Amino acid sequence: MDHFADLLAAAVQRTKTAVCVGLDPRLGNLPTGLISGRGTTNATAAAAFTKFCQGVIDVIAPLVPVAKVQAAFFEELGPPGMEAMADVIDYAQSRNLLVIVDAKRNDIGSTAEAYARGFLGRSESAWHADALTVSPYLGGDSLSPFVEVALERGAGVFVLVKTSNPGSGLLQDLVCNGQPMYRHAAQHVERLAAANVGECGYGAVGAVVGATYPTQLVELRTLMPHTWFLVPGYGSQGGTAADAAAAFDRRGLGAVVNNSRGIILRHFYSHPFRPNHS
Amino acid sequence: MDHFADLLAAAVQRTKTAVCVGLDPRLGNLPTGLISGRGTTNATAAAAFTKFCQGVIDVIAPLVPVAKVQAAFFEELGPPGMEAMADVIDYAQSRNLLVIVDAKRNDIGSTAEAYARGFLGRSESAWHADALTVSPYLGGDSLSPFVEVALERGAGVFVLVKTSNPGSGLLQDLVCNGQPMYRHAAQHVERLAAANVGECGYGAVGAVVGATYPTQLVELRTLMPHTWFLVPGYGSQGGTAADAAAAFDRRGLGAVVNNSRGIILRHFYSHPFRPNHS
Repeated sequence: MDHFADLLAAAVQRTKTAVCVGLDPRLGNLPTGLISGRGTTNATAAAAFTKFCQGVIDVIAPLVPVAKVQAAFFEELGPPGMEAMADVIDYAQSRNLLVIVDAKRNDIGSTAEAYARGFLGRSESAWHADALTVSPYLGGDSLSPFVEVALERGAGVFVLVKTSNPGSGLLQDLVCNGQPMYRHAAQHVERLAAANVGECGYGAVGAVVGATYPTQLVELRTLMPHTWFLVPGYGSQGGTAADAAAAFDRRGLGAVVNNSRGIILRHFYSHPFRPNHS
Repeated sequence: MDHFADLLAAAVQRTKTAVCVGLDPRLGNLPTGLISGRGTTNATAAAAFTKFCQGVIDVIAPLVPVAKVQAAFFEELGPPGMEAMADVIDYAQSRNLLVIVDAKRNDIGSTAEAYARGFLGRSESAWHADALTVSPYLGGDSLSPFVEVALERGAGVFVLVKTSNPGSGLLQDLVCNGQPMYRHAAQHVERLAAANVGECGYGAVGAVVGATYPTQLVELRTLMPHTWFLVPGYGSQGGTAADAAAAFDRRGLGAVVNNSRGIILRHFYSHPFRPNHS
């Protein structure tokens, strides 16, 4: 069984980039021609999402290691949207991309296990994801089922730690026993990651850490040496390349930087997130 | 436009019970005959889930006000499971039940809006839910889109505050500025609820508070006078009727107590959660 962290490291080294392309189809932003404004049903919108995402995948597949599928936009369309999401995941993997499903799932133990079994693992699960984002509010026993299933199946989990949105501080920045709450979450995630690392030195349990909070990103990189980071917030949310650079180790590993709304092709040719070959 | 809190209050008063029946279909627990052990596919399992849930709904619909659909078990089956979930939601509503979709969704602003638009509102959304559970880890700007869409559409939101699982304390019980983190979440949720109350005195924004933490339940009832509680953890998780009783106001309103795994019919005939008619 391959270890997810090693699959991710190999994909980053093969493509020489740590860009993760976000597949966030929004009806209002689709290219003209893919969908007509009148008479749009959830089924026709879902078909347009599939076509749009397949087009993006065709362009990015030779260039980047990972795509991140935003579940919310597919779910908004109901069952036809979920069909489209499954098709997009499969298509991305058929083009040699690793797929993170950004669904921020979370629940108590036995229910978390159902989510984990349903999403994680290319051949074992209904959704075939290589990795899933997960929210930690419910605590350690809500994360363990995701971690166990991920390790069994060579898949990964990215736990929300310090998110990129302006309001993330409401709970995450509360100071508890001398340090902000997100650091408590970070320490738990790092323990989970460190308990089972791959050859690359990272675990199958990663963390979501926003590029929009550069000071915290630096701090968390130090605090979480075995934890792969998924870094949102670069580009349209305001995070800069210099901000995101702090997420990487000296080998150029340890992070993938997501770009969704702002993705344009020159990012692939002249972006700063290239691994070194040390 | 009806206010969700008033719809819920009316349903509790009409049925004279505040029991919420959890629809948590698990393959291993289906009655024999609904599914054969051999050759089960996701599609046949999904069909069995629909049939099972419709059978439960037929029994409970005349007796209780609300059903809670656990998204995880449907999602585990992939797209056929999602079709089944949509069918179950529609069937429950056709039998006059209010439906809470327990999906614990959460994301940053514009993405949270997609979840909200997709789930909330009987006639406006793809999933037709009357209410949705939501996780607060990402902060205030991640909750507002759910609240806005809910208020526009006469729907409700239940935000995780103090969850019923043994590990909920990892983050929720951290003491921050002199009080546990869940109280900070609670205060935020109460402000959201109080900003727009219905005639019954409660808001469309509720809170998930576990019956397994009776002291906290009492404390939060006082702290959140405008917030409807969804109380899991009664029954198989260990919460008692006396524990859950603290969630109610003097009218017998302000809470619905969920029972999923332990549901048996005598709960409907001799349970303690009956509203008074004051």
